[in-house]
Amino acid sequence: MRLIDEEQLGDIARGAGILGTGGGGDPYIGTLLARNAIREHGPIQVVDVDEVPADGFIIPSAMMGAPTVMVEKLPRGDEVVNAFRKLERHLGRKATHTMPIEIGGLNSVIPLCLAAQIGVPVIDADMMGRAFPELQMCMPTLSGISAGPMSIADDKGNASIIDAVSNRWTERLARSQTIDMGCAALIALYPLAADRLAESTIPGSLMRAEEVGRLLRETQEAHGDPIGAVTDYLDGYRLFNGKVVDVHRRTEAGFARAVVKIEGLGDDEGSTLSLQTQNEHLVAERDGEVLASVPDLIMVLDSETGQAITTEDLRYGFRVTLISAPCDPRWRTPAGLELVGPRYFGYEFDYVPIEERVGGAVR
Amino acid sequence: MRLIDEEQLGDIARGAGILGTGGGGDPYIGTLLARNAIREHGPIQVVDVDEVPADGFIIPSAMMGAPTVMVEKLPRGDEVVNAFRKLERHLGRKATHTMPIEIGGLNSVIPLCLAAQIGVPVIDADMMGRAFPELQMCMPTLSGISAGPMSIADDKGNASIIDAVSNRWTERLARSQTIDMGCAALIALYPLAADRLAESTIPGSLMRAEEVGRLLRETQEAHGDPIGAVTDYLDGYRLFNGKVVDVHRRTEAGFARAVVKIEGLGDDEGSTLSLQTQNEHLVAERDGEVLASVPDLIMVLDSETGQAITTEDLRYGFRVTLISAPCDPRWRTPAGLELVGPRYFGYEFDYVPIEERVGGAVR
Repeated sequence: MRLIDEEQLGDIARGAGILGTGGGGDPYIGTLLARNAIREHGPIQVVDVDEVPADGFIIPSAMMGAPTVMVEKLPRGDEVVNAFRKLERHLGRKATHTMPIEIGGLNSVIPLCLAAQIGVPVIDADMMGRAFPELQMCMPTLSGISAGPMSIADDKGNASIIDAVSNRWTERLARSQTIDMGCAALIALYPLAADRLAESTIPGSLMRAEEVGRLLRETQEAHGDPIGAVTDYLDGYRLFNGKVVDVHRRTEAGFARAVVKIEGLGDDEGSTLSLQTQNEHLVAERDGEVLASVPDLIMVLDSETGQAITTEDLRYGFRVTLISAPCDPRWRTPAGLELVGPRYFGYEFDYVPIEERVGGAVR
Repeated sequence: MRLIDEEQLGDIARGAGILGTGGGGDPYIGTLLARNAIREHGPIQVVDVDEVPADGFIIPSAMMGAPTVMVEKLPRGDEVVNAFRKLERHLGRKATHTMPIEIGGLNSVIPLCLAAQIGVPVIDADMMGRAFPELQMCMPTLSGISAGPMSIADDKGNASIIDAVSNRWTERLARSQTIDMGCAALIALYPLAADRLAESTIPGSLMRAEEVGRLLRETQEAHGDPIGAVTDYLDGYRLFNGKVVDVHRRTEAGFARAVVKIEGLGDDEGSTLSLQTQNEHLVAERDGEVLASVPDLIMVLDSETGQAITTEDLRYGFRVTLISAPCDPRWRTPAGLELVGPRYFGYEFDYVPIEERVGGAVR
């Protein structure tokens, strides 16, 4: 068990911004909420997966919606408590822990914010090992564990409990509610017994976010190469270096979608990179050739500072460096790729792991 | 207490078709379902409002969606049991009775179908005194009674519990779920303690439907004037007699909308009637002048047989007679008109009661 206080929150938010692969919402909003909660209630307990007792009962928590909207429609902070309590009441059972369903962006911090308010520990783990745009894109789906019953709550006091026949149906019904609720809602889902935790999670995700954030901060302070440091830490690759020349953005069916054009600079001069996004970055193509794709992580960093740039912040003129890193190996299985591979998102090509696409030479 | 068996079902369905004012779905579908349930489980108990004991707890039941879809996507019959049981479980309380929320169409019969399957009595009452397209358009809304928590279930096994801050929000969230569920879903809502039954209901609605249906059948059998008989029974008025020359129909935002043009015949020769519908008929205009509007009932009957023609059945060439009848007086109050008056539906005119519009002369 460790305690997270205000200082560590900053690093987690900074790291989660990078691991969010463009989505998950702006982590600084969550940091503000969590900071307030810590000031009021004291530091947050974080436990490892193997510290959860056998009779533990976990209800993960998150925000759902389009990040472009989330940044303009800040949660008050108690909607997530409402979603969590509503699900507890519906299930007739108190949860012993909460945890993130994805690591990256706001959704790394929302469970911390909840935990501070209600005094339950957070498990240092998540269910994606990154961020994905749809809620069935979680390890538990691969293990046949239901996302429901889930609860969804908004800032006005509306709430629903959804109990669907599949996690994809849960996503569909919850997405409509999210749209009705103004494209941003707080959710509690994947209620989980402790004995199914190992197969459902990627352990140590919060620590990973914190370490990425600390590395970034420390390398910046030492005037080092923050992008190189982060890329190495993630066993990743530099993909492209350039200037944003076009951002075609639309909020559609409850998602923030974008196509971003980046003109190469330096070694990449003369090339154009096209980045396609559905909350999170899905595919990066260089001059029409795929460089990287889901489920591997594609991250857009400020070329100067190495700081993450979220989908909703990307705009004309930004100097950016794209990096990519391998996803959790479970996403590379046939079942994993069926859930989160490029074809699921409508692309007509097969997934090739980033290490094969880019090769050792570019690293 | 009385028992409803197969014979009475036919009259209820026939009458509910007329009182449905075009909407509420085809009552014959519900009749088939209820008939099967009666054959399997025996006749259905129907009780009057004043027979409900003081500790009674009522969960009304209905189908939600676009009638145009409902006729092609028949409920299996057990979805409504699922919706009802899910709400009971969520509330932690067994219901002693069910009842219709609207009288008219399929929704008069759905509670009978449920009652036969689970063996609870049906209260002879409804919450609209007619059919309306949105679920907040119920007497309980006028009394500040919540439609939620409500449950909604589909044929695939998906279900949600919705608990919103207002009945209009409940409608909005439930409508999206209905659309996701294929534009037709079964619902249980307005859970109600017996002591609030009087202010929330129009008593005797099922009996009224049955009597309208019987009157229609008997006058047909006696080669009498079925339309005249029904109009008199409802204290109504003949509005127009003509031939359908155009039906512009669309399913939009989960509703069946239509604009129907009817060319006058006989005394109405040379005039054109325009009928606007959102599941139920909202406004009838003769040569551009309003003849009748919500919340009064507007009904389209086959000129020959007096049988109701539902919105989804209306088509070119039909010979029809329009009649109108006064709504429950509570709908004519300022609060009632705010909820279901013409301005709520986007029309730029004030409500005028049908007896004032048409006057005694036309009756």
